[in-house]
Amino acid sequence: MSAQAQGSARYVALSGGVGGAKLSLGLAHLLGERLTVIVNTGDDFEHLGLHISPDVDTAIYTLAGVVNPETGWGRRDETWTFMQALQRLGGPGWFRLGDADLATHVERTRRLRAGETLTGTTAHLARSLGVRSRILPMCDGPLRTVVDTDQGTLAFQEYFVREQCRPVIRSIRFEGAHAAKPSPEVLAAFADTALAGIIVCPSNPWLSVDPIFAVPGLREAMRASGRPVVAVSPIIAGRAVKGPTAKIMQELGLQAGAVDIARHYAGLVDGFVIDSEDRALADKLAIPTRATRTLMTTLDDKIALARDCLDFCAELAGTTSRHSQGQGARS
Amino acid sequence: MSAQAQGSARYVALSGGVGGAKLSLGLAHLLGERLTVIVNTGDDFEHLGLHISPDVDTAIYTLAGVVNPETGWGRRDETWTFMQALQRLGGPGWFRLGDADLATHVERTRRLRAGETLTGTTAHLARSLGVRSRILPMCDGPLRTVVDTDQGTLAFQEYFVREQCRPVIRSIRFEGAHAAKPSPEVLAAFADTALAGIIVCPSNPWLSVDPIFAVPGLREAMRASGRPVVAVSPIIAGRAVKGPTAKIMQELGLQAGAVDIARHYAGLVDGFVIDSEDRALADKLAIPTRATRTLMTTLDDKIALARDCLDFCAELAGTTSRHSQGQGARS
Repeated sequence: MSAQAQGSARYVALSGGVGGAKLSLGLAHLLGERLTVIVNTGDDFEHLGLHISPDVDTAIYTLAGVVNPETGWGRRDETWTFMQALQRLGGPGWFRLGDADLATHVERTRRLRAGETLTGTTAHLARSLGVRSRILPMCDGPLRTVVDTDQGTLAFQEYFVREQCRPVIRSIRFEGAHAAKPSPEVLAAFADTALAGIIVCPSNPWLSVDPIFAVPGLREAMRASGRPVVAVSPIIAGRAVKGPTAKIMQELGLQAGAVDIARHYAGLVDGFVIDSEDRALADKLAIPTRATRTLMTTLDDKIALARDCLDFCAELAGTTSRHSQGQGARS
Repeated sequence: MSAQAQGSARYVALSGGVGGAKLSLGLAHLLGERLTVIVNTGDDFEHLGLHISPDVDTAIYTLAGVVNPETGWGRRDETWTFMQALQRLGGPGWFRLGDADLATHVERTRRLRAGETLTGTTAHLARSLGVRSRILPMCDGPLRTVVDTDQGTLAFQEYFVREQCRPVIRSIRFEGAHAAKPSPEVLAAFADTALAGIIVCPSNPWLSVDPIFAVPGLREAMRASGRPVVAVSPIIAGRAVKGPTAKIMQELGLQAGAVDIARHYAGLVDGFVIDSEDRALADKLAIPTRATRTLMTTLDDKIALARDCLDFCAELAGTTSRHSQGQGARS
């Protein structure tokens, strides 16, 4: 009996932006409300007086079926009247906000100012757009990803959007991490007795997944669940499917590939999913590995990879405790 | 030689929303940068975290030629993607914000939060849209029009937009008026030695013009200029061209017509412009009166009325001092 067929089994996915949202969509198709996606909010920032949560929005839009299929972020059938008008007024144009997308930021900001948590606001926005799975920001308080580069220290969106990832990264920091804590909802997701596994989506490990694990107590809660954790490599044959993962690995003195990513996740994950193209690397990895097609072009690709992840979790379930003891928790 | 031909003569217009903006446009055609429009900000409010200045925006859009010609407010060629998306997210829909219009509120709010004055922000927005005349908010601080009605106390936009002026008004208050003061720019406009006259546009005297005169020191500065003040009646044959002026006058126990409006402005204005239809009322008015076409349908109508106002100012100029002494200032 396949994992997804177990009617009460729940899963948690950890996700950054576009790549993570793609696998989350596959998982959502299989699991519906039995899926909780914990999303990176290290990219969040204040822009034009609005609280913008880029990765949370990508998760919501993708799972709601309203994402722009060409970019993987923003909304489909979008109009751009606001940006055109804003630029005529001399407003900042480097972060492009579509007219419909803007409604998300305005409504989020309005609710946050009224005292709602980011978790509560996210739940409202996702529900309004018809999302059945649960989308949780990794924490409610501020934890901001900041990069030290050859061009100085940059806030994440300045680096990622304004500078188009061109600066050379020297180090990555998570400002406010010391004061952050997992939300009650995140802790409850890991403590759920119906939890059957955790999937770390193929997001950038340094920029998108590390901020999640930087929330004090979050990885401890994940490991304390005793459930298998499976990570999917965002690198195929040394190249990132999207974004600066390969470039950043090189800048950090690493080899862009599954081996150094698996090493980065050592102690945190019980199984590693690599692309079939990288099948030969399996022997070099110190943890159970599954090779499959990880490139997600079609919806079927996403569902197939999701099914592989769930099956892998089921396969690891019997051996998780032993394996965890052998590796020791990284924290 | 007509007033508008006097190359250095400057004029100040006091204006509320749509009706006032129409005459301002006529004046702007004749005067260009020699016109300063002081605009009511008693209608300003905070909505969706944005500082919205409805009358200032109507002035800017009208003088910039980008106003929606069907409504007289908002922008032409507007799109409504934001509002549709906001309502799907459960956001408030009673105040309609077009996508391009939204850029004005976002940029204004951003600049105010950065410490710019409302006057500075208004100047920037107007200049960005190519307005040559000067548009000044009546003050930089908060002064909010509040109406006490049979349905309780309402903020102005709640009364005007959300409740569509249906509640019966018992009284009108200007919250924060005691702490308000004219901006240096407003005082400078009245102190300008090139000032040749002041035109009170055909806006609602109680809701749109009174808030301007409620700014402590503003009417004193206007009268101290010693220049003729001409007001245009917003009522033609007992009916308001637009908005609730006639309804409000009745609710306040007044007769909806030029006579009670002239009485309201007694001591503040030196001349009164009424519609030709009301020509018979001229004898009942205690101040110099000019009857002309005041309905502004076409641009030519606006320019013609503007020319009438300037000529009337010129005509009154020789008699102003004597007249003011005779009437005494209302303050």
